[in-house]
Amino acid sequence: MVDIHDLTRKLRRASDSKIVLLVSDGLGGLPLEPGGKTELEIASTPNFDALARRGVLGLSTPVLPGIAPGSGPGHLGLFGYDPLKYDIGRGVLEALGIDFDLGPDDVAVRANFCTVDADGRITDRRAGRIASEIGSKLCEKLDTIEISGVDVFVRHVKEYRAVIVFRAAGLGGNINDTDPQRTGVAPLDPVARDEASRATAKVCGEFIRQAAEVLKDDAPANLLTMRGIAKRPDIPTYEEVYGLRAAAIAVYPMYRGLARLVGMDVLDAGATLDDQMACLESVWDRYDFFFVHYKYTDSTGEDGNFDEKVARTEDLDAAVPRITALHPDVLVVTGDHSTPAKLKSHSWHPVPVLLSAETCRFDGCDSFGESQCLTGGLGQFEAKYLMMLALAHAGRLEKYGA
Amino acid sequence: MVDIHDLTRKLRRASDSKIVLLVSDGLGGLPLEPGGKTELEIASTPNFDALARRGVLGLSTPVLPGIAPGSGPGHLGLFGYDPLKYDIGRGVLEALGIDFDLGPDDVAVRANFCTVDADGRITDRRAGRIASEIGSKLCEKLDTIEISGVDVFVRHVKEYRAVIVFRAAGLGGNINDTDPQRTGVAPLDPVARDEASRATAKVCGEFIRQAAEVLKDDAPANLLTMRGIAKRPDIPTYEEVYGLRAAAIAVYPMYRGLARLVGMDVLDAGATLDDQMACLESVWDRYDFFFVHYKYTDSTGEDGNFDEKVARTEDLDAAVPRITALHPDVLVVTGDHSTPAKLKSHSWHPVPVLLSAETCRFDGCDSFGESQCLTGGLGQFEAKYLMMLALAHAGRLEKYGA
Repeated sequence: MVDIHDLTRKLRRASDSKIVLLVSDGLGGLPLEPGGKTELEIASTPNFDALARRGVLGLSTPVLPGIAPGSGPGHLGLFGYDPLKYDIGRGVLEALGIDFDLGPDDVAVRANFCTVDADGRITDRRAGRIASEIGSKLCEKLDTIEISGVDVFVRHVKEYRAVIVFRAAGLGGNINDTDPQRTGVAPLDPVARDEASRATAKVCGEFIRQAAEVLKDDAPANLLTMRGIAKRPDIPTYEEVYGLRAAAIAVYPMYRGLARLVGMDVLDAGATLDDQMACLESVWDRYDFFFVHYKYTDSTGEDGNFDEKVARTEDLDAAVPRITALHPDVLVVTGDHSTPAKLKSHSWHPVPVLLSAETCRFDGCDSFGESQCLTGGLGQFEAKYLMMLALAHAGRLEKYGA
Repeated sequence: MVDIHDLTRKLRRASDSKIVLLVSDGLGGLPLEPGGKTELEIASTPNFDALARRGVLGLSTPVLPGIAPGSGPGHLGLFGYDPLKYDIGRGVLEALGIDFDLGPDDVAVRANFCTVDADGRITDRRAGRIASEIGSKLCEKLDTIEISGVDVFVRHVKEYRAVIVFRAAGLGGNINDTDPQRTGVAPLDPVARDEASRATAKVCGEFIRQAAEVLKDDAPANLLTMRGIAKRPDIPTYEEVYGLRAAAIAVYPMYRGLARLVGMDVLDAGATLDDQMACLESVWDRYDFFFVHYKYTDSTGEDGNFDEKVARTEDLDAAVPRITALHPDVLVVTGDHSTPAKLKSHSWHPVPVLLSAETCRFDGCDSFGESQCLTGGLGQFEAKYLMMLALAHAGRLEKYGA
C-alpha cells in the first residue's frame, strides 16, 4: 500500500492558492423516520446550496465501512493521514484536549480517580463522580510527586478525570490499562507490552505507589486508575508533506490539539463563529490552508436534539458568505464523522462532502444533503483522499509520472 | 495488498474471445462554465451512444483521487498494472517514445542540449532551442563516444532533446538529474543514490566529459544535461499474466513503447484512424486483444481547443462501426486520463469508461458522457481493475475459490 504522503511530498508544487477546510463536527445525520430527511437536508442552507451548484458533492468514509470514528481518527482522515496507520492513544487525546503541549518524549495517561476499600479493592471506578473543584485540588497535590529522572505533570480535566504526563527520554508507550473495568477487585498492575516500555511501567508503578500515599485521606478519591497510556504518534507535518502553511481556527481544545499534532499553527480566536470568521479574515494573507472547526452539529447530535442540530447547521451556513468573500481557491465543507441525533452518538454513516473550486466537473447537484451527495461527482471515497483532491483543485500537485 | 496478476495468472482461462481496448487519450473533460457540458457530452457520438445503451458506463481513477497521471502511469493502469507499483522513469519513457527497444540491462537517460559559458555555467538550459536538424547531427557525433565495457547509444528526439542509453550488465538506474533546473550554475555531477548505481554514475560522468570535448565548438549546444536516468521496470507480459496474444495499433511512439513494455506486438499501421482500422481488420484473426490508441483528444485538450477536441471525438466515434463490424466480445472505450481543454493539461478528474459486451447488466445509460458515466453500472473504480472486468466479460476468468 502506497503511503499518501510519499506521493504528496514528491508531487507538491508551490502556489499562492488558498484552501479552506470547514469542518462541521458530526455533520452527517439520519432521518427520524424511513423516507424522511436528515438534519442537513431539513436545514435551510442557501449558501451551502449555492456552493453545491458550482462544486461537487460526495460521501466520505472516515475509516472503513461500518466503523464509527472518534474525533481523533475522524480528523486525521480529513487532514489526509491514514487513521489506521496513525493511532492516537486515549491518553494523548485527553492531553491534547486540555491544550497540553505534548512533546515527542512524553507518555500521556488518562487517569480516573477511584475509591478503594481497606483491602485495596475498587468500590467505585469514578470516586463518586467528585466535583471538578475537588478533582482540581487533588491534581495539584499529585502534581508535586517526584520521580527520579522523570518530569511528572498532573493536570485536571473534569470531575474524576485527569491527565498524567511522564517526560523522559527513552520511555516507551505500550502499557496495559490498570483500570480493571469492574469493582470488587484491586487495580491491575501496569505491565509493559514491549521491551521499550519496561521503564515506563516502573514509572507508572512508582507514581501509583506515591499517589496512594498522597490521597490516603481523600476518600472517596483515594486512588486512581490509568488508561490509554500512550505517546503521540510520529506524524509528519502539513508543511513537510503538503508544503502548506496551515492555520487552525478551532474553539475546543481537542481539535486544537489534533491540529497542533500535524503542525498547524493554532490561532487564538474567540469562542463564537463570528470570532472565528474575524480571525480567518485577519490572518488570510499569512497562511495557505485554514482548518475551521465548528463543534455544535456534533454536540447537538450527541444530545439527540434533531431540531437544534438543524438550527446549528443553519447558523454555520450563515457564516459562509464571510468565507466566500475571501475567494478561497478551494472551499471544502464536511464533517469528521456522522452524529445522527437519532442515535445520540458518533456513527459509521458516510459523511457529506462539498468541494467548491473553479475546476469542478458539474455533477448536477443543487443542494447540500446526504441524498444529493450520494449522486455527487466525488462518489463515495475514503476521507484520507480528501486532502489530495483539495490540493489538486488548488493547483498544488504536479502530475505523476511522465 | 493483493497483486492483481497473482489472481489473473491463477484464474485465466483459454478462450477464443476477442477484446478491443480503444483508448482515446485524455478523453475526460470539463465544462467551460458551471452547469455546462464537457467536450464528450457536446460531441455528437451516435456510435458510442449505441454502445452505451447496450453496455455499462463508469468512471475510472487512473492512480488515486487528486492525482493527474502522465501517459506512462495512465496507460499502465489501463493495461491492468498498478501504476504506483511500476514506476517508469522519464528516460525510459523518452526511449520508448522514439521506438528504442530497451533491454533489461539498459539505463536510459533523457538528455537536453544546453549552453555553458567559459566558466562552465549554464546560460541556456535548452541551447537556444536548436533546430531538429542540428540536434540530429550532434547526436550522430555523440553516438561515436566509446566507454570501456559499455555499449553507448545516442538518439535524437526533437530539437534540443535526446536519449542516451548505456547498455552493460550490472548497471543500476538510480542516479540524480544533472540538470540544475536553473541557469547561472554548472550542471550537477551524476551521483548514485544506491550502491548498484555507482558504476552507472561513473559511466554518466565519463560520457559527459567526452561530450564536452565533442561539442566544444557547437555552441549554443556545447554541452548536455541528464534527467530521469532509469531502467525499465521489470514488468510481466500480457501473455504471461492474462494469456492474451496482444496487438498494439498506435501511431505515436510513446504509446507503442508502453505497449511493447507489457509484451504487446506493436504493429505498423499508417498514421490515420482509417489506417488503424484497416490494420485492425487485417490482423483480427491473429490476436486476442487489441489496444488501439487515438491521440487527438489529448493533444487538442492540451492546446485548450475545446471545439477541436469535440470534433476529434466525433472523428473517433465515426470509426466505431468498423470495430463493431468485427464483433469483438468486449469493446472498451476510455481514456488514460482526463485532459480538459479548460485546463490545457492532464488532470486528476475521473475518466469516462464504456464497456460493451453481451454480459453487461443494463444500467439505463443512453449516451457516453461524464454525467451519464457518474450514474453508470461500473461506478467509480481504479483503472487498474478495468482489465479484470474486460477479461471477465470475455469469459477469460475462472471463478475464484470453490
